[in-house]
Amino acid sequence: GGEQVSSIGRGICVLLGISADDTQRDAEYIVRKILNLRLFEDESGRAWAKSVMDRELEVLCVSQFTLQCILKGNKPDFHAAMPAELAQPFYNSILESMRSAYRPELIKDGKFGASMQVNIQNDGPVTVELTSPAAPTDPKQLSKLEKQQLRKEKTRSKGSSESGREKSSLRPRQDAGASSGAEGDVSSDRES
Amino acid sequence: GGEQVSSIGRGICVLLGISADDTQRDAEYIVRKILNLRLFEDESGRAWAKSVMDRELEVLCVSQFTLQCILKGNKPDFHAAMPAELAQPFYNSILESMRSAYRPELIKDGKFGASMQVNIQNDGPVTVELTSPAAPTDPKQLSKLEKQQLRKEKTRSKGSSESGREKSSLRPRQDAGASSGAEGDVSSDRES
Repeated sequence: GGEQVSSIGRGICVLLGISADDTQRDAEYIVRKILNLRLFEDESGRAWAKSVMDRELEVLCVSQFTLQCILKGNKPDFHAAMPAELAQPFYNSILESMRSAYRPELIKDGKFGASMQVNIQNDGPVTVELTSPAAPTDPKQLSKLEKQQLRKEKTRSKGSSESGREKSSLRPRQDAGASSGAEGDVSSDRES
Repeated sequence: GGEQVSSIGRGICVLLGISADDTQRDAEYIVRKILNLRLFEDESGRAWAKSVMDRELEVLCVSQFTLQCILKGNKPDFHAAMPAELAQPFYNSILESMRSAYRPELIKDGKFGASMQVNIQNDGPVTVELTSPAAPTDPKQLSKLEKQQLRKEKTRSKGSSESGREKSSLRPRQDAGASSGAEGDVSSDRES
């Protein structure tokens, strides 16, 4: 309605697409990555050294179901996105997790489901794609993946090198496009 | 250097990440999808009905190697991106294909490899991820996939429904984040 909903200074603009299959596990993964991914330079100017939390920068989170687009020829199909009535509380819980893991006043958000103008100053530009791990439905597979996940987490916390390709080794589920160094603001256009 | 490099009105802002494995085939796919994807409403206001070409809108293309990011724990790794000396002619050839498939004056671009401020007014917001099919290296597999591809294309041109999930059924290679309805401009910051 011409109203400015939110704005941040330097930080990350997150465009968050929630899949119909996403679970608490996906939410936890994506919150951890957004807050800990080393997208910023350190004091000496070395790139990819510090996270948004390390630098005490801001996060602007905007819901973006179109990231769950599947192409049917040239027609976008959005049936893979979580339906709005479920996605809204899920999205709110992600915001809450982010606020409790970091500093609540540094996490801003758009208006869920509203048509908005999102102004992003993409500094760099830097755009990365974060995809949460799939939550398997088969209980047997689940426990195997859980064990792998636990092994990974342990390796990570010991600070030793990790066998990478998280992105390509797991089926895409929850996508978040993050623009680092982005200043941005969100203006509400009309309700959709 | 404080200079405005490019700007567009309504259209698509493409953030283009080229993978080290990308080939001409990936380039052709991505150009076709950018130009033909139905991201815009038609005259009667029906959403997801018209392409950027149908509506005679503009395209702003910005090279974005960080889309080829692989996470190593919380550290972004960019070794999957095509090295700049190869990516620059590849990127230019993508621009050329887009210009010859559409109208040259409606395709704008940033400065390859330069550090820039990219101002995107993401209208909606609408952000979609386009991933080109993998180009297989095994000749046997190649012909099989080519046949599948041809079958798909035929189905598509007949206008019948297509068994979708192009995104999830193919290994991610070339990523393009597209914001439709985006007005935007690109200002050069400093050379990197």
